Amino acid sequence: MSRSLLIVLTGPGKGKTTSALGQVLRAAGHGMRSCVIQFIKGTPTGEARAAERFGDLIEWHITGCGFTWKSKDLQKDIEAARKGWALAREKIASGEFRLVVLDELTCLTKYRMVPVEEIVRTLRDRPEDLHVVVTGRDAPPELIEAADLVTEMHLVKHPYESGTKAQPGIEF
Amino acid sequence: MSRSLLIVLTGPGKGKTTSALGQVLRAAGHGMRSCVIQFIKGTPTGEARAAERFGDLIEWHITGCGFTWKSKDLQKDIEAARKGWALAREKIASGEFRLVVLDELTCLTKYRMVPVEEIVRTLRDRPEDLHVVVTGRDAPPELIEAADLVTEMHLVKHPYESGTKAQPGIEF
Repeated sequence: MSRSLLIVLTGPGKGKTTSALGQVLRAAGHGMRSCVIQFIKGTPTGEARAAERFGDLIEWHITGCGFTWKSKDLQKDIEAARKGWALAREKIASGEFRLVVLDELTCLTKYRMVPVEEIVRTLRDRPEDLHVVVTGRDAPPELIEAADLVTEMHLVKHPYESGTKAQPGIEF
Repeated sequence: MSRSLLIVLTGPGKGKTTSALGQVLRAAGHGMRSCVIQFIKGTPTGEARAAERFGDLIEWHITGCGFTWKSKDLQKDIEAARKGWALAREKIASGEFRLVVLDELTCLTKYRMVPVEEIVRTLRDRPEDLHVVVTGRDAPPELIEAADLVTEMHLVKHPYESGTKAQPGIEF
């Protein structure tokens, strides 16, 4: 049986967003159209620039206002998150894509910006041939329950512990 | 302090290779040149085809003879693996890249095709500004010890359990 998957990449370790991006690259190699929606990141990253070479196959949206735990205006963040979610619903329903990546979607539920029931219902009711990849720490149990494939990334060793700073091409 | 990293993606879960690929996409967005060497996979995948759009930034080598546990000619696989490793050493030393991905490198040590000491020494002695990403299950302790960043992917839920087969754009 071949069917579309709801994939969740969660856990405290690194590699959740990069794994979703690899999935997009892989899909592009098969001529499958993808849509990436980044919920928390507010500034264009290396991957967003790289995706410009796939204008025919990859659509990219950055909806966030930066990271909420640094935020000075939570209300503004909530509005941005809800707008991002409305866009996600539209792209999921559009039938234009074979893969939709919702990067850091779990932040929306963690901070109760969007009800988890609404998110799960939208993902369950997606078009039949659409794969969805959700990334983010602390995926809620309702989302795990709805998912077909769940991977948890665990940190074994991290260079920040030894004082190395985030670097372009690696972290963003 | 900013310095090049040796990143190891291991564990039994999904997302190791895709995460390395996302890292390549991210690096490409920063104009950083990458070299990907796939050790076990024997046929071009979606990601290899997608990378063709980055002919200026991504070099891709498929060195394997398929998966060894399916193999009928182990000696042929060992030769292919050693040739692949010689190529990896050359690319690492070349100074042409900012990122080298060694996909499924851990298979070489698991099946004792190349001594782990030689692999670790080569990775430790790499050019100063070169990031290396190694993927594969069962990373040996010597490699973990040498690495800066280690992530383990753990399976929480897998669709094969419910009879869904591997699909293009998702699995390869």
